[in-house]
Amino acid sequence: MSAVIAVPQVGLIGQSTVRRDGVAKVTGQFAYGVDVRLPGMLHAKIRRSDIPHGLLRRVDVSRALALPGVRAVITGDELPEYRASRYIRDELILAKGSVRYKGEPIAVVAADDPEIAAEAVRLIDVEYEPLPVLSDPEQAAQPGAPLIHPEWQTYWANPVLRRDGNILNHTTLLRGDVEEAFAQARHVFEDEYDTQIVHQASLEGHVAIASVDLEGRVHVVSSHQFPYGLRQDIADILHLPLGRIHVTASGLGGGFGAKLYASVEPLCVLLAERTGRPVKIELSREEELAATSPRMAARVHLRTGVDSDGHLLVRQGVIYYDAGAYSLSSPGTSAVGTLMLPGPYRWQALQIDSYSVYTNKTNCGSYRAPGGPQATFAGESQIDRIARELGFDPIEFRDRNAVENGDLGPAGQVLTGVSLRKTLQVAKERSRWPQAQDRPSRPGVRRGRGVACNWWTTTSGASAAVIKLNDDGSIVLSVGATEIGTGAVSAGLVQICAHEMGVAVESVQIVSADTDATPYDFGAQGSRTTFQNGQAIIRAARDLRQQIFALVAPGLDCETDELEVHDGHVYRRDGTGRAVPLAEVARLGQTVGGLLGRGSFTAPPTPYDPSTVKGHTYPAFNSPSFHTHVAEVEVDTETGEVTLTGYHVAQDVGFALNPLYAAGQVTGGATQGIGYALMEEVQYRDGTVLNPNFTDYKLPTIRDVPTIDVALVEEPSEAGPYGMKGVGEPAVVAPAAAIANAVYDAVGVRIRSLPITAEKVLQALRSRELEG
Amino acid sequence: MSAVIAVPQVGLIGQSTVRRDGVAKVTGQFAYGVDVRLPGMLHAKIRRSDIPHGLLRRVDVSRALALPGVRAVITGDELPEYRASRYIRDELILAKGSVRYKGEPIAVVAADDPEIAAEAVRLIDVEYEPLPVLSDPEQAAQPGAPLIHPEWQTYWANPVLRRDGNILNHTTLLRGDVEEAFAQARHVFEDEYDTQIVHQASLEGHVAIASVDLEGRVHVVSSHQFPYGLRQDIADILHLPLGRIHVTASGLGGGFGAKLYASVEPLCVLLAERTGRPVKIELSREEELAATSPRMAARVHLRTGVDSDGHLLVRQGVIYYDAGAYSLSSPGTSAVGTLMLPGPYRWQALQIDSYSVYTNKTNCGSYRAPGGPQATFAGESQIDRIARELGFDPIEFRDRNAVENGDLGPAGQVLTGVSLRKTLQVAKERSRWPQAQDRPSRPGVRRGRGVACNWWTTTSGASAAVIKLNDDGSIVLSVGATEIGTGAVSAGLVQICAHEMGVAVESVQIVSADTDATPYDFGAQGSRTTFQNGQAIIRAARDLRQQIFALVAPGLDCETDELEVHDGHVYRRDGTGRAVPLAEVARLGQTVGGLLGRGSFTAPPTPYDPSTVKGHTYPAFNSPSFHTHVAEVEVDTETGEVTLTGYHVAQDVGFALNPLYAAGQVTGGATQGIGYALMEEVQYRDGTVLNPNFTDYKLPTIRDVPTIDVALVEEPSEAGPYGMKGVGEPAVVAPAAAIANAVYDAVGVRIRSLPITAEKVLQALRSRELEG
Repeated sequence: MSAVIAVPQVGLIGQSTVRRDGVAKVTGQFAYGVDVRLPGMLHAKIRRSDIPHGLLRRVDVSRALALPGVRAVITGDELPEYRASRYIRDELILAKGSVRYKGEPIAVVAADDPEIAAEAVRLIDVEYEPLPVLSDPEQAAQPGAPLIHPEWQTYWANPVLRRDGNILNHTTLLRGDVEEAFAQARHVFEDEYDTQIVHQASLEGHVAIASVDLEGRVHVVSSHQFPYGLRQDIADILHLPLGRIHVTASGLGGGFGAKLYASVEPLCVLLAERTGRPVKIELSREEELAATSPRMAARVHLRTGVDSDGHLLVRQGVIYYDAGAYSLSSPGTSAVGTLMLPGPYRWQALQIDSYSVYTNKTNCGSYRAPGGPQATFAGESQIDRIARELGFDPIEFRDRNAVENGDLGPAGQVLTGVSLRKTLQVAKERSRWPQAQDRPSRPGVRRGRGVACNWWTTTSGASAAVIKLNDDGSIVLSVGATEIGTGAVSAGLVQICAHEMGVAVESVQIVSADTDATPYDFGAQGSRTTFQNGQAIIRAARDLRQQIFALVAPGLDCETDELEVHDGHVYRRDGTGRAVPLAEVARLGQTVGGLLGRGSFTAPPTPYDPSTVKGHTYPAFNSPSFHTHVAEVEVDTETGEVTLTGYHVAQDVGFALNPLYAAGQVTGGATQGIGYALMEEVQYRDGTVLNPNFTDYKLPTIRDVPTIDVALVEEPSEAGPYGMKGVGEPAVVAPAAAIANAVYDAVGVRIRSLPITAEKVLQALRSRELEG
Repeated sequence: MSAVIAVPQVGLIGQSTVRRDGVAKVTGQFAYGVDVRLPGMLHAKIRRSDIPHGLLRRVDVSRALALPGVRAVITGDELPEYRASRYIRDELILAKGSVRYKGEPIAVVAADDPEIAAEAVRLIDVEYEPLPVLSDPEQAAQPGAPLIHPEWQTYWANPVLRRDGNILNHTTLLRGDVEEAFAQARHVFEDEYDTQIVHQASLEGHVAIASVDLEGRVHVVSSHQFPYGLRQDIADILHLPLGRIHVTASGLGGGFGAKLYASVEPLCVLLAERTGRPVKIELSREEELAATSPRMAARVHLRTGVDSDGHLLVRQGVIYYDAGAYSLSSPGTSAVGTLMLPGPYRWQALQIDSYSVYTNKTNCGSYRAPGGPQATFAGESQIDRIARELGFDPIEFRDRNAVENGDLGPAGQVLTGVSLRKTLQVAKERSRWPQAQDRPSRPGVRRGRGVACNWWTTTSGASAAVIKLNDDGSIVLSVGATEIGTGAVSAGLVQICAHEMGVAVESVQIVSADTDATPYDFGAQGSRTTFQNGQAIIRAARDLRQQIFALVAPGLDCETDELEVHDGHVYRRDGTGRAVPLAEVARLGQTVGGLLGRGSFTAPPTPYDPSTVKGHTYPAFNSPSFHTHVAEVEVDTETGEVTLTGYHVAQDVGFALNPLYAAGQVTGGATQGIGYALMEEVQYRDGTVLNPNFTDYKLPTIRDVPTIDVALVEEPSEAGPYGMKGVGEPAVVAPAAAIANAVYDAVGVRIRSLPITAEKVLQALRSRELEG
């Protein structure tokens, strides 16, 4: 890290203030969800399916119930049809009748300590009648494939969304005359790409504690990204009145999209109701990796036509996303593929079909930029191939085809704030592209450099804020937003509030992520926290300033619009009159009940053009950001090993509110993208995860990742606060293609399947030798 | 209990809904402050002065520090001048140089467990040089008395409030020509009255836990009535920025005014800062009774002139309130005496001097209706004497002299909502006054009946409320108010919110008493919680309804003022159109950030007439309530024992929001007044409390108190919600006089000193025999 391009320094915004939770986190004193303990708390463990697909013949809990220290055992058969999942209600919280993935919850045990609970789980006897196991989403999508959900058409009332067989969602983007465009094309390129399942691998997994008070009110503390969503989920799943549920997010040790839905919480609530005591569930690493919601694998078929001048004409693509056994967020995240597969380029015609398909794996879910990395690996690998085969510099080729302001996006929206060319230029300069690279570090090693671009949208959804003025002129900011670990709440929102209220960041205290005590927020998802909450805070601050000015104006003999607030004082803009301390205004305000501002915001979503998009959709780019990544690699031609030697990101953030944490987000995202490119994979064989631990599931460490050179480009958006665009997700999207393209540059082979392991590279090199 | 007079039944208000915390409290599962435990928490104990007055020669903590398990010891000498007390900063949180009452904190110890802390306290060696002990406030007020605070003129900057010698406050009410009025008087009555120190005796004493987070932010959980006040106190005492302090009230096991100021909290904070760990202090019953802030004793000199028709003309009174060693709330509570000593009667002239005087006792403080019971015992005992000696029925005499609407109150305000005659009439009917009573239960016993009246004010001070609409149409109400135990928050405010929002009480959740998470409230004091917060809630609900109506009106094709909300639905007032569920409106509102109403309220205080009142004042009656109590006693002429056989209260509550809990408040207040009348006393001898335990400090039990017959009279106030007046305090005021007057009625002796023990009655009977 890191350089910031053109940050306007205006008050506190644009400055790298220090996050509120920083000291506690780096000194190991921060309290995460796993640290929460309640008096009298029981510990629960889940009995999970031993097989990936089958009928449940018998679930015998008698030995478990007899174990001393066991307080409750619940099986699916005891429950009404409590159905999880937000889009399609295809999943029971405890299996009944059949199981569809290995690791599916069958029963849950609450006991005095975790060891007893674990022992009781082992004592639950389950008999199955095995059924065929489906592993490949494209095969599972074919007519005649065995059905994983024979009855699933009944799950969802909306027939528009209902598909046949194992296809749970199909979104089509069709624009222009595809056939005619291919007929015009001088060159047509056709490829197939495969991406793997990877896991969010938060250092803290899913953990929740539920208790029920004497009024029957349910209190849930969960390591969760979206307390309001969780409250709704629990209400929907357990048929509880929403108002009877109170959700608080604990400190989060990571989420990355895995903690957006109810997971263990409904089971905690049932056990707490059953036992009358608080109940905690904390998943093990094995459960996390094998039975929570990783990123979908995908197969992409891609065909692209180009004219004789190197202009992209038409792209036709089919994506089969592997949803796993249940839908969870797959309808939404698979729809993203239709927006991402075209990439940020001009097209005459597009036809993108995105399928999300059931298989007998854990239900996949949302993971940072869901749906994007799969599509972009395919799209940008092929763009690179086209550029190289037509004799263009890959950056020049992208520049030649880049969208510009006023062009149409894939959903039919008119694009604004477009900055692809700017990020290409910055990335080019910072990577000294296309100058010759340094010499390889040793014989047998070849160096290469690859580029990849993407665009990304910021998710909308409502946020609200309440700002209270304390008697000493300090501030309490109340938001429903959750600090997922990015600093968005603990630095960014504090900073915006301090800036807007004209006080130091130290003067702002924050209350957050509590469905009783704080206002609404749509959750830490879609790069939206600072974007949406920031606007809500700006509005709440405006409201509060207006109240302050109304109290001060008479004394300063002016109108409210002649006043401003900074440095903790109210001033006349014309510089006359005295500076009135906020503390003085606060005490005045106290006599009328205290001053309290409120504000809310939802970025208006861009409507889809219904003539071009069919099926379930994902909120379109209302404020796209643009990104160019350049990877520098060394490839060992003897072993196939790929070493990343340099990495550059030019990311359009609209406005860098806090350059330090914006760059931190980019670094973190790119690092996860690098893991995706080179090493991470949840390995399945016949429905069984082979590597459910951090020894065999390899995450990138500091030894695998070079210093990420981050350049924050600022092309203001229309909707974001101070022109901001969402920052958190997009940096994970491009690395796989950039690295694959760098490998090609180094050794001339294209790896079309992730991760890019030494074995695959070596095999490709050998195949080429055989062909050559 | 209990009858309610003329309750208008309008929706949820006026109904005896059940309080939210009721089940938990009656089943013993409610969590009070004493139940709060934090991980790693230390326990602290206080080393207190062994003598009532002296110079501190040496404080040696070396043996305490050496005790294993002791984590910190702090003495006053180590600290800057950290001064407690809200009005006059005359008290150090740990003594330096001298001690002024037995039990004054000298040092504080934090240790691993309470036993070690207690042992360490015993190991702290203190040497004193004794000074003279002052016990009697009237004597201490005389010129030439030894000074308890020789330097105290420096404590307070405002010279208006500075007095000489040991007098810390002197408030004078002077209206009309007193000399001329006495000259006109046909009869002049002159008496002296004494009242004792009594304790609030909450079943849960003072308990607080403080912790300091890694940002240096201080979190205090305290069994406290006024979190916002405590936050200000801690900031003032420890010179901390207010915004760095976060106060939450725990569940309260009683307060009655004793928990309105900082007490143990600053010591907890200092120890938490010193040790880096949470620190809890929980006072013992002995500490509570001997070293916290009971009700002031008082001596009252009273002279009253009456004309030949039985009309009161003039009253001249002097009250010496015993403040103890430090001021605490004495300036305010002693000023109340000037308002209370006249009683609710018409006067040509008044001269009331109220002094608050230092003595070498624990600093007295606020206790339910502070300043009132002392003055009213004197005033109403003498009114009774006057009536009887002039041959009037005591009720008729009061009726003849009662104030009416439009009369001037003692502060010069024009009275409205006056209901004294109504309460006299109701009490008369309910006690079947003046019909002959039942025969005494046995020979040697005489029956008697006494009446006493008072008026009381509701304290003002700001409150604010925020009301949030949940997605299912349920409600979250956020207020800074504290549930002191009356049901004001857990029933009353919930009820008002539900009523105003047109939902069931079960649909309202409440968040309260947190200086970060909830809006401002002036605290659970002065009978103000429902009164002020109720108005804030009404305003917040109006604000929220307006937002709801704005969303619904277009669909119902009408203006917002044509809509109303009840039964969880919005309707057109004209009955046309469909009923729109609040849940539907909420989901609509969610898209714009959720709907959130806010409101605040401060009843405008009635200004004093500065020509008639000098010195520190207490907020005047802006909405007086009126009360008549009738006590029925049996007096054993052999033993002097007084048995209460019946008790009637007619209390004007303005509007009975929740008759059950309003009557509960009256019953509780009257019971404490009965204890004050007959048995309770913190007994001092030479500065030492003789009875610091519940064996020797006798509280009334169910065996001492008959069923209290409560009649709630409703004479609407101008300022309160739905016409309410404050309910909590006033019932404690009149019992002492009513019972003393009943004893006179029974056996013909007037007891002018509280409590009315068998010894005093017997002595009076014998004196009369000797005189007779």
